[in-house]
Amino acid sequence: MEKEIITIAQKGREASRAIAILSTERKNAALERIGSFVRQYADTILAENAKDIENAHNCNLNSALVDRLLINEQRIENMLEGLSDIASLPDPVGAVEDFRTLPNGLQTGKMRVPIGVIGIIYESRPNVTLDTSALCIKSGNAIILKGGSEAYHSNLALVRAIRDGLEAEGISPDVVQYLEQRERKAVSYLLKQDAYIDIIIPRGGPNLIRKVVEESTIPVIKHDAGVCHLYVDKEVDLEMALNVIVNSKVQRPGVCNALECLLVHKDVAESLLPPLIKHLKEEAVEVRGCLRSKQIVNIMEASEDDWGKEYLDKILALRVVDSYDEAIAYIARYSSQHTDGILTSDYSRAMRFMKEVDSSAVTVNASTRFNDGGQLGFGAEMGISTQKLHVRGPMGLKDLCCSKNIILGDGQTRC
Amino acid sequence: MEKEIITIAQKGREASRAIAILSTERKNAALERIGSFVRQYADTILAENAKDIENAHNCNLNSALVDRLLINEQRIENMLEGLSDIASLPDPVGAVEDFRTLPNGLQTGKMRVPIGVIGIIYESRPNVTLDTSALCIKSGNAIILKGGSEAYHSNLALVRAIRDGLEAEGISPDVVQYLEQRERKAVSYLLKQDAYIDIIIPRGGPNLIRKVVEESTIPVIKHDAGVCHLYVDKEVDLEMALNVIVNSKVQRPGVCNALECLLVHKDVAESLLPPLIKHLKEEAVEVRGCLRSKQIVNIMEASEDDWGKEYLDKILALRVVDSYDEAIAYIARYSSQHTDGILTSDYSRAMRFMKEVDSSAVTVNASTRFNDGGQLGFGAEMGISTQKLHVRGPMGLKDLCCSKNIILGDGQTRC
Repeated sequence: MEKEIITIAQKGREASRAIAILSTERKNAALERIGSFVRQYADTILAENAKDIENAHNCNLNSALVDRLLINEQRIENMLEGLSDIASLPDPVGAVEDFRTLPNGLQTGKMRVPIGVIGIIYESRPNVTLDTSALCIKSGNAIILKGGSEAYHSNLALVRAIRDGLEAEGISPDVVQYLEQRERKAVSYLLKQDAYIDIIIPRGGPNLIRKVVEESTIPVIKHDAGVCHLYVDKEVDLEMALNVIVNSKVQRPGVCNALECLLVHKDVAESLLPPLIKHLKEEAVEVRGCLRSKQIVNIMEASEDDWGKEYLDKILALRVVDSYDEAIAYIARYSSQHTDGILTSDYSRAMRFMKEVDSSAVTVNASTRFNDGGQLGFGAEMGISTQKLHVRGPMGLKDLCCSKNIILGDGQTRC
Repeated sequence: MEKEIITIAQKGREASRAIAILSTERKNAALERIGSFVRQYADTILAENAKDIENAHNCNLNSALVDRLLINEQRIENMLEGLSDIASLPDPVGAVEDFRTLPNGLQTGKMRVPIGVIGIIYESRPNVTLDTSALCIKSGNAIILKGGSEAYHSNLALVRAIRDGLEAEGISPDVVQYLEQRERKAVSYLLKQDAYIDIIIPRGGPNLIRKVVEESTIPVIKHDAGVCHLYVDKEVDLEMALNVIVNSKVQRPGVCNALECLLVHKDVAESLLPPLIKHLKEEAVEVRGCLRSKQIVNIMEASEDDWGKEYLDKILALRVVDSYDEAIAYIARYSSQHTDGILTSDYSRAMRFMKEVDSSAVTVNASTRFNDGGQLGFGAEMGISTQKLHVRGPMGLKDLCCSKNIILGDGQTRC
């Protein structure tokens, strides 16, 4: 099987060369053509998805997971809309930054170019197949997809539409390949193809991400957990704080930029906590608090496990702190450096927090839910990177590119 | 021993928090203080270096390697000059790019922040110890150094000056740590500390780099081989071509941006090769050519091994090609994507080459030796990155930073 995987990786590399230098017009035409194939194959896609859904029921997958898996006509329309959105975004390739003339007359700058071959290993939602393929095509990259076995039939049906669309536009279908091999070893082999694949993006649970980080010889861009914090400072507009906290927790509790732990300065705990807990209870949020918070409001007691935990659910950890410094130290210890914020009316502590907290997004008086490519105006995203190198936070089209130095001369030599 | 390594990594993380938010003035003061300790300890540094040199002679290291290892008074002065240069560069930390106001009133931008803890594994030249430490201090990072055993005593003497300088300025000396453990396993343990170390930079031969890529769970920025090519197009100013080729090959043959393979279009081979080979012979360059080139000039025959080879020596591979397309295909196959260039007077092929060749630097009518941080005006560099993510080409102070999204609001929530 290793040989098959190597062949896939080599084909990806080969296809990446042509798509890298394709014009924006032709890439957009391909996206449009893929859309019409998805529409044309809609019945097959729905039928293949039905197989996955049946398997999911047979395996007793919970209803939330089954819902993530489901494709229906509305969701096909949503996918097609996403495709059009990506076609309408500006092409990130070819822009030259920092173009300048050196004293010896050389002209130089950094030209944005596609990364090359991108591997993505993901779980569940089949729309990721179409979204990520479209983002890679638009940014001039080849992609090798490895979806979860629970979405196997749906993913293959979508990939057929994508490849047929590419071929109909005269582009190598190997720009988008799907790793059909279902054995665990297939991924292990894929992770060693650093000669042909430029980056690996794992999107999924902690076990998947750990496996990829440990085995990959290809550079990895992690889309890891979000253990997000808000700290309520001693000087703060209580109503604003209450709104932002509730929004951060309940607007969509199952995603990585939702609030997981609230830190409250002791001076405002007595005035903030009673109305806040009342509000959260109305929203069916379970609050697990430290001993000091339990003296003020009637909530469950938190255990040691609750600090630094990503619930992805309507659960909130709560802790009363003595000072700004204690909050900062707590966040440095327990945050996953995804999104952390302060709620304050004090200028200098707002500025200090912005500087001192090292997370992919740092918020002041704003919902944690804003750490999102769409919300920040970056357009469609591959996911939210939780690592520091290359891109941190929402990963958009530009971040699917790297740069090369161009050096234009008329015979300059070095002495 | 694993425990000792973990402790070093944890201390690095701890120290990184403080240096990350230190003012430019205090970081520059530390660099200045380090300089005065290097001067103060100069006799010890020379004495410790003498031990390494003696060991090198005992191990029959060749004279080029012994020379790389040597510290003398002049080289100490050069190191101190490098230190002053780094102090005088602008501080990369804190700049905010793309700051803007969103429709909902949120203000957002990308703030440049230190990466955190940087591990560097390097061979030979002890000045790297001082240079890389200074670059990390200036960019607000902690560094963990692991030098080659051949420079053990020199490195420790330099590290003592650095740590004493930091301490004298009231900064934790753990900002700069040296891995004294000499067992091979020490590096293996270091490469697993992704909880505390943010990037690993290997600088050295292919075996070192392969070991790091295979074992590291920490993101790696490779400073890998330079198999650099120049292609002489069929329309070209022959004298310009000759000068640039000779400069690229002989100006400093032992470095990664030196020319290793020359491709010549068949239409200019007969006019270019005789004077070129004459010139190269005067410079004591051994040329290994394909069969077609041997019909024109009297040179050694190249073997299959010569294509894609990094000589780092006064040797040049030479090949006559039929067309621009053949040259591009050859470079795509054999280049290490470090530095590749075209020599041409044809506008459209110059533009095509710039677009189609995917290397960290692409040159037109210029020496390959210009792919260098100092030459391109980036200032002192950590090395030349041969990977695509985060930074490609010379890695300067800015590239020792990452970014975080700052999101400043007055109570915005998401609907």
